[in-house]
Amino acid sequence: MKISELGEFGLIGRIAGILGPAPADVVVGIGDDVAVLHVGGSEHLLATCDIQVEGVHFRQDATTPRQLGRKVAAINVSDIAAMGGTPRWALVSLALPDDTAVAFVDELYKGLEEQLRWAGAAVVGGNCSRASGEMMIDLCLLGSVQPDCMILRKGARVGDSVLVTGTLGDSRAGLELILAPLGEVSEAARRAVTERHLTPRPRLKEGQILGASGMVHAMADVSDGLMSDLGHICRAGNVGAEIWMERVPVSEACLEIAKGSGVDPLTWALAGGEDYELLFTVDSRHVASVADAVWRQTGITCTEVGRILSPEEGIRAVHPDGRCLDFTARAGGWDHFARGGNEKRGMKT
Amino acid sequence: MKISELGEFGLIGRIAGILGPAPADVVVGIGDDVAVLHVGGSEHLLATCDIQVEGVHFRQDATTPRQLGRKVAAINVSDIAAMGGTPRWALVSLALPDDTAVAFVDELYKGLEEQLRWAGAAVVGGNCSRASGEMMIDLCLLGSVQPDCMILRKGARVGDSVLVTGTLGDSRAGLELILAPLGEVSEAARRAVTERHLTPRPRLKEGQILGASGMVHAMADVSDGLMSDLGHICRAGNVGAEIWMERVPVSEACLEIAKGSGVDPLTWALAGGEDYELLFTVDSRHVASVADAVWRQTGITCTEVGRILSPEEGIRAVHPDGRCLDFTARAGGWDHFARGGNEKRGMKT
Repeated sequence: MKISELGEFGLIGRIAGILGPAPADVVVGIGDDVAVLHVGGSEHLLATCDIQVEGVHFRQDATTPRQLGRKVAAINVSDIAAMGGTPRWALVSLALPDDTAVAFVDELYKGLEEQLRWAGAAVVGGNCSRASGEMMIDLCLLGSVQPDCMILRKGARVGDSVLVTGTLGDSRAGLELILAPLGEVSEAARRAVTERHLTPRPRLKEGQILGASGMVHAMADVSDGLMSDLGHICRAGNVGAEIWMERVPVSEACLEIAKGSGVDPLTWALAGGEDYELLFTVDSRHVASVADAVWRQTGITCTEVGRILSPEEGIRAVHPDGRCLDFTARAGGWDHFARGGNEKRGMKT
Repeated sequence: MKISELGEFGLIGRIAGILGPAPADVVVGIGDDVAVLHVGGSEHLLATCDIQVEGVHFRQDATTPRQLGRKVAAINVSDIAAMGGTPRWALVSLALPDDTAVAFVDELYKGLEEQLRWAGAAVVGGNCSRASGEMMIDLCLLGSVQPDCMILRKGARVGDSVLVTGTLGDSRAGLELILAPLGEVSEAARRAVTERHLTPRPRLKEGQILGASGMVHAMADVSDGLMSDLGHICRAGNVGAEIWMERVPVSEACLEIAKGSGVDPLTWALAGGEDYELLFTVDSRHVASVADAVWRQTGITCTEVGRILSPEEGIRAVHPDGRCLDFTARAGGWDHFARGGNEKRGMKT
């Protein structure tokens, strides 16, 4: 059997079975976006890694090396942010063809450094290897979190409100523009969505505020797409959920690009992925106070987009006219290896 | 300018310049094999990563996935061992072609798990991505070390004896056999050297004994080759060194393969690499007691193979007949990107 037939969660299940139970010093192991480790101090250590493969995650003709450096740092910072944590140290693994320009490496590291410094972290090591084919950048990011501020994927409760920071769909709109440029789009919209795709801004401060609020039950970043990442939260917490489509926040820029492309922008907002917003659940009574805390300190809006249901109710997106799109079967997230699935991204083990 | 023209240490220097000074909580940053981080507890955190790229570091027709898993774990364990540390947690980044067999991934993880369990560590996370071309496995290994047991590359003192554990050259002999099978070789020798190449045994216990001895001034593992890794120690400590060729320990199996191949086995022992033995320096008065401590607890022999010299004396390998091979110009190690250099391996930043 090929991994594309087994699918993502089948593969994770197999791997978890091979690896056996985690040692006692592993607070959270395989299955969340970030490993949580007990290192003996008052804070937990966080560890995550994410890879960018040429031809799969990026094309050299569509991104500058500096943007690439920023992005690979940002997607890892976003994982730490979604735990309520603080990024600290990064290790960088590069596999580069022999004929890579030194200027490319310079710019790549400038981008890494810019994004990591913004997040309070620093590159402390790594390794560099020849690539036989495409180049590849893997970043391992370590961070820390106060145990009582840590938020996991699991923990959502039936009746919780589902909230998301910022707007969704922009990154996918940017990707579409990069892959198939449109003539009739304003420069402002074009720039807004391509920047969202090429140099995402992780919601680090927002994650820390949410972690410190003591009111958030479960959280993930929107890397695979809203419905997919909601699926992760539902699977981890053994709950269902519904998303109210008309409430999903979509930017003016995304609306403009979608209109120009003849696409329903909700498609991108529900399933586009790579927005690196935060998706979280709170008791419905706390929606206003949590959203207000984030808005006051960061200027970022949190929008209530749905509700946590019992597991039997499945996972669905509800149209204002009452139609439902059922995502239950895909509750585990897009199958990154399944044929016809979302082929851009990787999956966390 | 291409990275192959700039060379390894030019590139590391550029990267270090871009990244700027390390934060205060970084005890050892870029430049050693392992980053050492202050996490607040009584022990330091160690972090290292090493990548295996298909077509560069391994070929699927020459290794089983289980061997590959063991090896990628072993080379990282070896880095932690060379600090006197204890491996704890691993993150695994995979980039796999869509048509990778599930059985391949199963076996890869079994190999990882076997070698990590042997070392007292566990896989706690990672991610899995599609590869556009060759597969790639990157392992980030975290460990811990008591600050007073930690040994760095730097610290060698003029007059120190240079010692190495076990035997050198076997891994290269194994690689040569894999690349170009010889008919007239005993099965025992063939198995011994190919196992050394495909499933190296990191000197973990030995490194911990050396770290706890309080007598070792500098240490590295022999991954690039004896003279190259000695160059790392010399560069880090601003010293020179000489290796006495006739003292370099070479196994019977390696001698047999070299004879069959018509090669001087010292070539493999001095420059072959991937032996994952430990190379370290101690005050000459402590050679016997250090070697005895390792031998009594592990059965592994430590051999005195040379001496640390003043930096002006350079780095050389001395033949019994008095001839010297000068490695000073290569004191920084083989240029992994330089044309004609050792193209199998990567470099640490």
